Amino acid sequence: MTRAPLTRTEKDSLGEIEVPADRYWGAQTERCLRNFPIGRETLSPAFWRALGLVKLAAARVNKARGALDPKLADAIEVAANEVAEGKLDDHFPLPVWQSGSGTQFNMNANEVIAGHANELLTKKRGGTSPVHPNDHVNMSQSSNDTIPTVMDLSALLLWHEATRPALERLIAATDARADEFKDIVKVGRTHLMDAVPMTLGAEFAAFAGQMRAALWSLDDAFEGLLDLPQGGTAVGSGLNAPADFGERVAAELASLTGLSLTSAPNKYVKMAAHHDLFMASAALSGLATVLHKYANDVRMLGSGPRAGLMELSLPKNEPGSSIMAGKVNPSQAEAMVMVCARVFGNHTVITHTAAGGQFQLNANNPVMADALLQSLKLLADMMDSFRERCIEGLKANEARLEELTARTLMVATSLVPVIGYDATAKLVFEAEKQNAPLRDVALASGVIDAETYDKHVNPGKMAKAK
Amino acid sequence: MTRAPLTRTEKDSLGEIEVPADRYWGAQTERCLRNFPIGRETLSPAFWRALGLVKLAAARVNKARGALDPKLADAIEVAANEVAEGKLDDHFPLPVWQSGSGTQFNMNANEVIAGHANELLTKKRGGTSPVHPNDHVNMSQSSNDTIPTVMDLSALLLWHEATRPALERLIAATDARADEFKDIVKVGRTHLMDAVPMTLGAEFAAFAGQMRAALWSLDDAFEGLLDLPQGGTAVGSGLNAPADFGERVAAELASLTGLSLTSAPNKYVKMAAHHDLFMASAALSGLATVLHKYANDVRMLGSGPRAGLMELSLPKNEPGSSIMAGKVNPSQAEAMVMVCARVFGNHTVITHTAAGGQFQLNANNPVMADALLQSLKLLADMMDSFRERCIEGLKANEARLEELTARTLMVATSLVPVIGYDATAKLVFEAEKQNAPLRDVALASGVIDAETYDKHVNPGKMAKAK
Amino acid sequence: MTRAPLTRTEKDSLGEIEVPADRYWGAQTERCLRNFPIGRETLSPAFWRALGLVKLAAARVNKARGALDPKLADAIEVAANEVAEGKLDDHFPLPVWQSGSGTQFNMNANEVIAGHANELLTKKRGGTSPVHPNDHVNMSQSSNDTIPTVMDLSALLLWHEATRPALERLIAATDARADEFKDIVKVGRTHLMDAVPMTLGAEFAAFAGQMRAALWSLDDAFEGLLDLPQGGTAVGSGLNAPADFGERVAAELASLTGLSLTSAPNKYVKMAAHHDLFMASAALSGLATVLHKYANDVRMLGSGPRAGLMELSLPKNEPGSSIMAGKVNPSQAEAMVMVCARVFGNHTVITHTAAGGQFQLNANNPVMADALLQSLKLLADMMDSFRERCIEGLKANEARLEELTARTLMVATSLVPVIGYDATAKLVFEAEKQNAPLRDVALASGVIDAETYDKHVNPGKMAKAK
Amino acid sequence: MTRAPLTRTEKDSLGEIEVPADRYWGAQTERCLRNFPIGRETLSPAFWRALGLVKLAAARVNKARGALDPKLADAIEVAANEVAEGKLDDHFPLPVWQSGSGTQFNMNANEVIAGHANELLTKKRGGTSPVHPNDHVNMSQSSNDTIPTVMDLSALLLWHEATRPALERLIAATDARADEFKDIVKVGRTHLMDAVPMTLGAEFAAFAGQMRAALWSLDDAFEGLLDLPQGGTAVGSGLNAPADFGERVAAELASLTGLSLTSAPNKYVKMAAHHDLFMASAALSGLATVLHKYANDVRMLGSGPRAGLMELSLPKNEPGSSIMAGKVNPSQAEAMVMVCARVFGNHTVITHTAAGGQFQLNANNPVMADALLQSLKLLADMMDSFRERCIEGLKANEARLEELTARTLMVATSLVPVIGYDATAKLVFEAEKQNAPLRDVALASGVIDAETYDKHVNPGKMAKAK
Repeated sequence: MTRAPLTRTEKDSLGEIEVPADRYWGAQTERCLRNFPIGRETLSPAFWRALGLVKLAAARVNKARGALDPKLADAIEVAANEVAEGKLDDHFPLPVWQSGSGTQFNMNANEVIAGHANELLTKKRGGTSPVHPNDHVNMSQSSNDTIPTVMDLSALLLWHEATRPALERLIAATDARADEFKDIVKVGRTHLMDAVPMTLGAEFAAFAGQMRAALWSLDDAFEGLLDLPQGGTAVGSGLNAPADFGERVAAELASLTGLSLTSAPNKYVKMAAHHDLFMASAALSGLATVLHKYANDVRMLGSGPRAGLMELSLPKNEPGSSIMAGKVNPSQAEAMVMVCARVFGNHTVITHTAAGGQFQLNANNPVMADALLQSLKLLADMMDSFRERCIEGLKANEARLEELTARTLMVATSLVPVIGYDATAKLVFEAEKQNAPLRDVALASGVIDAETYDKHVNPGKMAKAK
Repeated sequence: MTRAPLTRTEKDSLGEIEVPADRYWGAQTERCLRNFPIGRETLSPAFWRALGLVKLAAARVNKARGALDPKLADAIEVAANEVAEGKLDDHFPLPVWQSGSGTQFNMNANEVIAGHANELLTKKRGGTSPVHPNDHVNMSQSSNDTIPTVMDLSALLLWHEATRPALERLIAATDARADEFKDIVKVGRTHLMDAVPMTLGAEFAAFAGQMRAALWSLDDAFEGLLDLPQGGTAVGSGLNAPADFGERVAAELASLTGLSLTSAPNKYVKMAAHHDLFMASAALSGLATVLHKYANDVRMLGSGPRAGLMELSLPKNEPGSSIMAGKVNPSQAEAMVMVCARVFGNHTVITHTAAGGQFQLNANNPVMADALLQSLKLLADMMDSFRERCIEGLKANEARLEELTARTLMVATSLVPVIGYDATAKLVFEAEKQNAPLRDVALASGVIDAETYDKHVNPGKMAKAK
Repeated sequence: MTRAPLTRTEKDSLGEIEVPADRYWGAQTERCLRNFPIGRETLSPAFWRALGLVKLAAARVNKARGALDPKLADAIEVAANEVAEGKLDDHFPLPVWQSGSGTQFNMNANEVIAGHANELLTKKRGGTSPVHPNDHVNMSQSSNDTIPTVMDLSALLLWHEATRPALERLIAATDARADEFKDIVKVGRTHLMDAVPMTLGAEFAAFAGQMRAALWSLDDAFEGLLDLPQGGTAVGSGLNAPADFGERVAAELASLTGLSLTSAPNKYVKMAAHHDLFMASAALSGLATVLHKYANDVRMLGSGPRAGLMELSLPKNEPGSSIMAGKVNPSQAEAMVMVCARVFGNHTVITHTAAGGQFQLNANNPVMADALLQSLKLLADMMDSFRERCIEGLKANEARLEELTARTLMVATSLVPVIGYDATAKLVFEAEKQNAPLRDVALASGVIDAETYDKHVNPGKMAKAK
Repeated sequence: MTRAPLTRTEKDSLGEIEVPADRYWGAQTERCLRNFPIGRETLSPAFWRALGLVKLAAARVNKARGALDPKLADAIEVAANEVAEGKLDDHFPLPVWQSGSGTQFNMNANEVIAGHANELLTKKRGGTSPVHPNDHVNMSQSSNDTIPTVMDLSALLLWHEATRPALERLIAATDARADEFKDIVKVGRTHLMDAVPMTLGAEFAAFAGQMRAALWSLDDAFEGLLDLPQGGTAVGSGLNAPADFGERVAAELASLTGLSLTSAPNKYVKMAAHHDLFMASAALSGLATVLHKYANDVRMLGSGPRAGLMELSLPKNEPGSSIMAGKVNPSQAEAMVMVCARVFGNHTVITHTAAGGQFQLNANNPVMADALLQSLKLLADMMDSFRERCIEGLKANEARLEELTARTLMVATSLVPVIGYDATAKLVFEAEKQNAPLRDVALASGVIDAETYDKHVNPGKMAKAK
């Protein structure tokens, strides 16, 4: 009994090379695997999905314009569709750290699709005939326009399918808590110090409002990614592609994805720089600043259980300490803070590499794609987890909130329009010195009578000034 | 003969303190000066200007609603207007590094305006009567809404008056060069390696297009700053201010500045976080990535004069070396790269501090204002200088551009659709090995005849593929 | 026939939970898996290895001091050793994004070791008896001292076993090229512009020297990590651990690893902050600035093949373009630039989180460990790849180097001490204007005779000024 | 009566130009002023001081070796000494944003010293004779070795004279508080949640220990700057300088400053990259992470006065609010947080620019110098202010500390070695549920008797576990 050979021979312009017999990829993918044994990082599956869609769209356009033999085109379409559906993810093994154009990602797709199409047509896997990875699958394309197109498209897919909905859900959940807490009066805090009263509802509504502002910026930013560079080929001029190739591919992709994709009027612009992608990352970073504050405030308000602020009780999700039995920690908030730090770090990566393009190409495509897709995925997952396991389950400790409100001196602020800033300050300092209630000190001072005091100093009314 | 005393005594809620007799400021400004002897940094004059405008607008609103004695209001207006016009800049001495709310900036304005108004009304400079810094100049305001309002407004003023026009001028100058160079054929470059031909005009048009994309993002971002938090007072609730105070101040400021200013619907949102300011900084950082590449490409294309790329000649602005006589360097491009680095650094400052707000206040206002206003000013000045002293004066070295184009092998790309990728690659490798012209090698190989070759391999036509 | 059950029931202080029957982990690991379904990131295997070593060392110390039943201790040792050898990596499934102390990583180890030890002792996998994850495996430990200890130790292991040797190899390879190129004269370049002559050897020696400087800083930085916080338990006081526990564990770990590990004199210091880890990341970032320049210079010197600087020829590792047949790109240099960008991003992560500790704990342990270990691994792999596939194979194009040297005007610098700066500058400008050789212009000018000129202007001698 | 002319004519290799008559500078400084009208930033006076010292040292060496006419040398020494003493600071007007080598800074010094020396020798200010800025003041030097030397030297001066002593003072003051607080028992906190008891003294000792670790890293880093590139001249080869020039200048500078300055063995290394400067900035950034935590913890512990943690009372330095009379805020801690953010931003600037050197020069000298010197100055001033106005004056609220300690449940940790982790956790959850003291719940549960409980659960003893 003979065993199937473990490898087959593939070939590219630099010569022959052995590839695993059970993989569709060819010589260039294999060369890349061997030339870049660096790290553990691979791109998000969203990238392969978008790459499959682009190859599918290109094949349809090339077939329709009569440039690609329909028989080959059909086989390419079948294979590309499988890539787009994630069925061939195991055939995309390449590391992030490789050629700066991401050429090998493009060739990986070209080879896998050709290799699978050839198998469909000839029963023999791989090779370059009848379907050639460059001449047919890559027809009218270059890595230099394809990879930036795929970067845009994969980010759009993740944004619209994962990150944006998760953000909307977190906003909605926060709105719900704000509504629920709208009559709970509490001490406001500025500089971490006691300030005038407000409601717990207003505190949560502010979190929601800040996330909403971030969402608007994100929507603006992701609109920029809809404009695709496909059609620019090698440097932006569109050499070796028909004049309307970019427009036709964009239209095809729009129909495949439901996104309002268009073709960039100047392809040079988007191949040599990635301003739209930079702004998407910047806006995610902006969202991270907002989420960072949200998580941080929540864990500070939930600090305790006996020696903290104790205004909120957070859900007990898991034991928090291996030594302090019974300890429970704000771990979702902590994970959020760490995710935000990673998002800031990813924006550093993108800033450095966005600035580092040269001439007609920004040769930092793989790391930019990796950083952006990681930020999108982490924020999506983290917002859902934070919502489910922290926000939706937290409780307001009403007795504690009331106790703290009753104690504060900053309710004196209501007296400023009545007795002036200087006289009010005096009362506050005196109350602090005596460690006595403000009302007692105020009435004892003679600067104000009880009726006037009580009329103005009313935390409940102050909290809802408007 | 008696000399005028060098100081006068001022007072605040913490007690008495001596201030310079010739300054309008009072006790709190003086305290801040003494408590924060840190560094050399002061805020941009744009900040004092915006602060004066806010105080002027507030006085008008308070007078109109009958809360502020018209006599006091009028004196406040006169003084505030002088602040807004920059006439009292010498009375704003405070360092960036101080209270995180910027309270002392607000009090500096309250004190200078009160001190000057009192002088107008009583011939005696300073003091708190008849005009009190807190009770009258600061009426219906808190530092916590005023300073964020002034941060937004000062950034908008600098953007619309300096940075945006400078960017438009640089885009226009770049467009002009693109037009001028539209028929000059050259070698494109990807990965720093020779690629297919293009025109020098297309290269400059790409710079312009990238700046245009940055401009769109900036316009989106600065729109967010139009929505002002004034009216939220201490924590966002608007305590001690009438319900429509924010709207009326915004309307007054709109009329004073011509900007479409509005009042934020939720003041808590914008006092506890500065997402709009973050996005403005992010978009400036995006512009910096674009300008960084522009400057870097220009200096690489201008490298030489005998051992570089030498495609461009840059203006000789100044001797470039203290030892190498006759050396001239791309110093405007270098200054641009350094300005961009500073802008990236400023965005790090803003990211760190935007994420670091707590509860109802982001106590990092001064450094955020400083970083944003510095980025705006540096980019404005630098774009003008780069335009005037580099872009408008550079020359294309046509003979050199032609020579390099004639030499390249990547014109072979036009043969790919004719003889296929693999055969073309073979010709290129052979030409490189023989160090011979591609045409000679191609014809010698027998895979293509002269007529076909010449029909397809035409750099001039390739450069303008579309 | 009955099938083995797919799960078994485990229990912790929050109650019962089902875990996969074939895994050693218990309730807390399982809870963490369910509570943090975030991203794709897991820690480096080096972390599990170091965690196994710490558990092994702790068991030995606890056994030796008579606190831990020898039977239990021996079983724990066997299991911990398997963790340390990487045999149980599949039992460490937890995401980076979890509790900020990394408590669940510690509990994962406690549970896997207990679960496996129990199996060894009772033939029944898992559970908390006779070996209890907290009471026995975690004896005298807390996550708060254990995880920071493991962060230090895993980084030290990767540094000494992978990154440091790779750096030494790259320095050695660079030294070898410097030696080989020591007599090849070339044009130096400052500001990207032609400067005075030097040797190609000196250029490579500078790369080596810069890496050597980075190595010294790294050695300084990693020394700090040798001082371990183990023994501080919950907050740094060492509660529930014997006074010499930290010292004894450090000694045990030193003997297991061969590293000069010691016990930190003040455990509070290293549990609430991670300054040593920060400095290790900072020094890696410094190495990245050096490697970034190395890679960037090499790709610029190798630019061409017909329209660039063409001083070097880089190895042809793989086809560089999917459309431009025959194109080969400096892909190793590009991967290096991208790795450096990621290292800068990781340092942003670490800066943000190092500054963000609170009270007795820095609750950002997992992301800090992930960022540092990723930087170490990527730099190790990348330096080896860059060395093997770029530096060792590149060739100097001597004819081209000579041609460029012959052309430059900056050799005029040798005339400055002879005829003065101003007269020299005049000659250079004239030669540039006439596009003529400097010697011709100099002799024609009459300011210098041929003999004096030739005596001073000798690129070969100038290149080796010392 | 005739008025003195407002300008005089100066000349350089590009031609004539008018300069202000009362300034010593010449044509190149004036050209730079006109060519770079960018921003408001100028370098720290420490830079001019160091530049004066280098020029002084160079003149002495050139005189001693007989290359410079003693009459000229003496005049140069007098003028350079005035620069070194800060007497001519008004003659150094140049912006940070200029030629990337800082050539114009060097020429500014060359021209001012020549201009002043000529005045001393001829009674006529300015000009190039008898003392020529390039031929005499700059003899054996290039900007490319001089400016990096001055960057190192100015940073060393600021570090040793300002930043290091301020750090030592803050450490000492913190040690003093730690000692004073060594018997005050308090609740430790991890994850912001109550943890086991400790002392307030241990908390402050940890701050001191973290600063000490930062100091060690800083000392390591600044040692690297002692090795000066002077002597490398244009590209590192030392062309036009005698072989021992660098060594002799370093020795002269060492004697002038008392610093152990040496000459770098390979000048190329330090002119094309600034690794030592990068590490100095990195270590300052590390100090900033430590100070950030210190300031942040102090303000959280001081939060209140009625609704916060209230463990500490911070000094009342100034009124904290323009609207909330009587409010006082932790403004020194806030200023510290902002300074740290700026230091992080400066390290971003330095990372970006350190990575961006090209060939034989890193053309980002001015911005790197500016960023590093700013970080040094801000940290020096801020540490002194934070010490004087916050740390030295804060008070421990002993009653409050005791109250919180008495309440916490985490003292239960002492029971873990007695009754096991699981039983202990049960008690804690029960006490929390009942909102009852742990002791009551523990005794009621029957798992432990009063005597055993009291023997183990003793916060005072737990706090000082070792």
